[in-house]
Amino acid sequence: MGGVSTTEHVGRLPHVPKQDRSRATRQRLLEAAVACLAEHGWAGSTVSVVAERAGVSRGAAQHHFPTREDLFTAAVEYVAEERSTALRALFPDGAADRRVVVAALVDLYTGPLFRAALHLWVAASNEDQLRTRVTELEARVGRESHRIAVDLLGADESRPGVRETVQGLLDMARGLGLANLLTDDGTRRARVVEQWGALMEEALD
Amino acid sequence: MGGVSTTEHVGRLPHVPKQDRSRATRQRLLEAAVACLAEHGWAGSTVSVVAERAGVSRGAAQHHFPTREDLFTAAVEYVAEERSTALRALFPDGAADRRVVVAALVDLYTGPLFRAALHLWVAASNEDQLRTRVTELEARVGRESHRIAVDLLGADESRPGVRETVQGLLDMARGLGLANLLTDDGTRRARVVEQWGALMEEALD
Repeated sequence: MGGVSTTEHVGRLPHVPKQDRSRATRQRLLEAAVACLAEHGWAGSTVSVVAERAGVSRGAAQHHFPTREDLFTAAVEYVAEERSTALRALFPDGAADRRVVVAALVDLYTGPLFRAALHLWVAASNEDQLRTRVTELEARVGRESHRIAVDLLGADESRPGVRETVQGLLDMARGLGLANLLTDDGTRRARVVEQWGALMEEALD
Repeated sequence: MGGVSTTEHVGRLPHVPKQDRSRATRQRLLEAAVACLAEHGWAGSTVSVVAERAGVSRGAAQHHFPTREDLFTAAVEYVAEERSTALRALFPDGAADRRVVVAALVDLYTGPLFRAALHLWVAASNEDQLRTRVTELEARVGRESHRIAVDLLGADESRPGVRETVQGLLDMARGLGLANLLTDDGTRRARVVEQWGALMEEALD
């Protein structure tokens, strides 16, 4: 890929450079893959289904993502990065009101991304080929979430116990995401988040 | 079922009443179902596979559990009850040292039962037939876990915020179980549990 070249496709969309179209196709595939995983689970998520949903040929999809594992791990990573960026953008001055930050962190673990990631994790627990990939991905995404949480909570990790307090908070956020899987748990979650925002304020002061 | 009757099976095990054998068969099926779900996920878990694993005929398995949904929801409920009973038995005098109780509660969400339950939840999120059953089951099991947690932590739920503190703790335990799905997260978990045991001691005092 990359560089300026002429192919039979170039003539069709003369105003959009090939690289940009390639990037747009890739992005459409990634977003379709996450939506597909969230709605149909791993068993119902194949490259063909995603290609069709994205309006891309199967060949083009395979050009971007040679295997099913490539597509779905890339998709979950892409959306996780998008969400991290969006979360940081919510707090442009860094550390903010801890109650508000706790609520925003918990929000990371509800919705289609978490649902998609959960399907991928659970499938990976029984499939060796997927397991290594997803374990690496999870470690990367987990480290980044922790870094954001520490920054936005203004947590001083040089103090004993603070690191584990933040880790436990993110574990709680993940658990709340799980509790939201089958039913809308929003009302209960809001109360838990309020109380734990207050607990975090004390624990991190 | 029930009552004294003679069938061709009775002669084989003359000293075991039929009802007891029926109960033992049921229990073997339930335990095999949880193990199967934990190891192979929902897609790999059928009544036939479980019957074979339990050393029971497919017909006998279907006599006890007419549908796949019956078998697997009953299995997760059975093991959840066993674990609740075992947890209460660990603390025969009720409320105990909160740090020890927090560790014991978190232990409920690691191991094969949690793994099996997770497979069932995730499958239920995409299968309507399973969804209603699992939602009911989860509500029952969740209420019982909350009740045990309140009792053993000696938590006074008439005080504002205490109920949500305990709920959040159980959400954290669930999140820690999820973090343990792909890799052995035991070392990190032990540190988080220690810190959160201390936080709970303060929060509930």
